[in-house]
Amino acid sequence: MNRFADMTVAQLLAALASPNPTPGGGTAAAIAGAMGTSILVMVASLAKSRNNTDDEKAALASARAAIEPITVTLLDLADADAASFDAVMAAYRLPKATDGEKLARTHAIQAALRGATEIPLETLRACAHALEHAHAVADYGNRSAESDTGVAIGLLKAAADGAAANVRSNLGGLKDEAFKAATEAETARLLFSPATLA
Amino acid sequence: MNRFADMTVAQLLAALASPNPTPGGGTAAAIAGAMGTSILVMVASLAKSRNNTDDEKAALASARAAIEPITVTLLDLADADAASFDAVMAAYRLPKATDGEKLARTHAIQAALRGATEIPLETLRACAHALEHAHAVADYGNRSAESDTGVAIGLLKAAADGAAANVRSNLGGLKDEAFKAATEAETARLLFSPATLA
Repeated sequence: MNRFADMTVAQLLAALASPNPTPGGGTAAAIAGAMGTSILVMVASLAKSRNNTDDEKAALASARAAIEPITVTLLDLADADAASFDAVMAAYRLPKATDGEKLARTHAIQAALRGATEIPLETLRACAHALEHAHAVADYGNRSAESDTGVAIGLLKAAADGAAANVRSNLGGLKDEAFKAATEAETARLLFSPATLA
Repeated sequence: MNRFADMTVAQLLAALASPNPTPGGGTAAAIAGAMGTSILVMVASLAKSRNNTDDEKAALASARAAIEPITVTLLDLADADAASFDAVMAAYRLPKATDGEKLARTHAIQAALRGATEIPLETLRACAHALEHAHAVADYGNRSAESDTGVAIGLLKAAADGAAANVRSNLGGLKDEAFKAATEAETARLLFSPATLA
């Protein structure tokens, strides 16, 4: 499979617009989140002013160090999201003529749906983690980049919401009640964390 | 200048993360909006069910026809946003040794800031227009793509908010009070329109 990172923006948009089910919202959410983390890295690279205190410099450097690797994580998740949904559709296409085939197909669907739940949950975790550090960038970053920081936080929140919608959509088809309850609890906790809501 | 549409996603993210002021939040907002419109085109291409009524088919086709050209508009605005902000910075760098130079520089800054206000306002208009039609996609599109529609609407709202933040940020430096009042009024109207809030 082509990596989305290596597609041009025009190719990515054409792939999203095509009637094929993947790439879909999960991939777009991850890439939107990666635009958010990239902008935060830019803002965290600008001093607040010529008079930045040592503490302010340290807070920005620490936020930048935490946020920078999340861009790569989100690009990986953009690919993984499409692959995990392709696996769900492949499982649904398995033969179901005999009882043995039906059983194998049911197991394959459940395993694939679980994967298609875990990937957007990872996206949600990555966005929530970036948002925890975004507020240091907003507080100590250069004031002239304030609207950039605002856009970045808005994109990360939209990405977190979109990832959560995908988690819940795929969770609906799962039968493992313990996994469903734990995943829904973590999704709600991440969505309603102070950093995600602020 | 390279068009962002022709950059790979990885190149776009590296450009956003670089300490250069452009591309910044305005470009990212436009591209996030274009991901939203692309996903809506995909969902509008799927029938709701095998029993779609003629009215439902017509509503989806109409929404699709309205949304599809907005992707290209938003890609153009991604480029225009960076160019308009580059023009602001170029104007600030003009010489200011003599009174004549100071006057010319002030005029150039005002003209450039006006451009850097009008571009994100166009982005906001494009996103608000897409959101007006997104609700037909949510109502008549395929239910299995519900979470995709949700991600698309979330991205368009984040793009609209980000564009509005950029309008207001650049509006602050303008001296033409009539233009400022009219632009702020349109920005507020678009942000608080039923389609943008729903």
